[in-house]
Amino acid sequence: MTEPTEPTTDDPNTTAADRTPPSVAIVDAKTPGNVGTIARAMKNFGFEDLLLVDPPELDPDGEAYGFAGQAREDILPNATELSFDELAESYHTIGCTAVTNEDDRSHMRYPYSTPADLAERLPTIEAPTALVFGRERVGLTNEELARIDEICAIPASEDYPVLNLGQAATVTLYELRTLTLPADGTQLPDLERTRAPEPTLDRLYDQWGALLEELNHPDEKRDKTMRMLRRVFGRADLTEREANTLLGVLRRATERPAED
Amino acid sequence: MTEPTEPTTDDPNTTAADRTPPSVAIVDAKTPGNVGTIARAMKNFGFEDLLLVDPPELDPDGEAYGFAGQAREDILPNATELSFDELAESYHTIGCTAVTNEDDRSHMRYPYSTPADLAERLPTIEAPTALVFGRERVGLTNEELARIDEICAIPASEDYPVLNLGQAATVTLYELRTLTLPADGTQLPDLERTRAPEPTLDRLYDQWGALLEELNHPDEKRDKTMRMLRRVFGRADLTEREANTLLGVLRRATERPAED
Repeated sequence: MTEPTEPTTDDPNTTAADRTPPSVAIVDAKTPGNVGTIARAMKNFGFEDLLLVDPPELDPDGEAYGFAGQAREDILPNATELSFDELAESYHTIGCTAVTNEDDRSHMRYPYSTPADLAERLPTIEAPTALVFGRERVGLTNEELARIDEICAIPASEDYPVLNLGQAATVTLYELRTLTLPADGTQLPDLERTRAPEPTLDRLYDQWGALLEELNHPDEKRDKTMRMLRRVFGRADLTEREANTLLGVLRRATERPAED
Repeated sequence: MTEPTEPTTDDPNTTAADRTPPSVAIVDAKTPGNVGTIARAMKNFGFEDLLLVDPPELDPDGEAYGFAGQAREDILPNATELSFDELAESYHTIGCTAVTNEDDRSHMRYPYSTPADLAERLPTIEAPTALVFGRERVGLTNEELARIDEICAIPASEDYPVLNLGQAATVTLYELRTLTLPADGTQLPDLERTRAPEPTLDRLYDQWGALLEELNHPDEKRDKTMRMLRRVFGRADLTEREANTLLGVLRRATERPAED
């Protein structure tokens, strides 16, 4: 682990993707596996700076490193150990909790933002920010929450809203990935590029029409069947290759010699 | 575990929240802890039916039950063990994978939907559906994916898009919670109810005006300062109690005898 350093505010002219992503702080985690799970989620969603208050021992041969996937190479060994005081004084802190107050008679855990709310609000802010996750079972204490700047809560089933520590952090970091990953910065290819162009789809529908003709599909049902086909393939967002493959199959079905 | 039963299609007149939520299938998981983690996420987000293909042994004293939280009481013991054939034949299967094809030259892992896409599309569908998660490290094989109806992929960092099995399922079920939880069915109280009404906010701004007057705030800066205050408190979405508490503080600040 490295020594705590003063968080810095970057050039305000940088774009969202250039900005320093929020840090992730874990307070008093008991199980190394959860620290590793959170480190992995950080790497999956583009976060880098892990802050640890009263961490468990993180043995390089133990569960923290075992659960961290590729985050074992950077996020875990570069984690910063600091006190809760240092955390509260150096960062705008967002405390995550499953249990909110019911209304504004108490300000301790109310009002709250959801991770989706934060994803909308935080991109306009460039200042040292830390997402703070508390220990297993009891989360952040009221004493800790009282020193934290705002509250975040994940919407879940009212029957059982308490997520496991690692899972709560994973969901939160997933929702906040827009703060860290550039717009085209996920692993997923852009689907728009390969959606079939309209002329290709028109040829496909023409071929369906030719097939219906060839099959002597009843005239009075022709329009209705064509509408149905447009709906089916319209919803399916065919790629150009899918459309061309279908077109080839239909052409052969239309043109094959009738058995007699 | 119970025997596989034929999935049923419910009355089409039921509302979204009454409908059978998708089942969750785990294929060939190696570690019981991941099965427990997924069962917990299911309970957190309102899913009920767990399907297991070639599961590891789930010892009631082991990690599956240890990681499942309250899902140890119902989802885990009620899980159904079935073959991959039974899964593929009985359900509309949605296979989750981090690795997609780059374009439509291969249909194996392309096109894909994201969990957010599914959350928009699936609420209109009432038919037996299973979200299918593959084994650790390699996920679903190409042979399995070839028999699966559609592909789902979680957007993540292109540097390291591969989530841990339990974390991938948690994110997917979180996004799909709208299929299972009624609109007011999370643990979180409705914030709208307690946002301060406009007359309260007007009194607050009037009191700020009175304080500025009392402080001999320069006339030419008065409007600009009032605008700033409106922006600050406008963004903060004050609750009525917060507004009233602030109003009380400001009133006392305005009315206290000037020192002389």
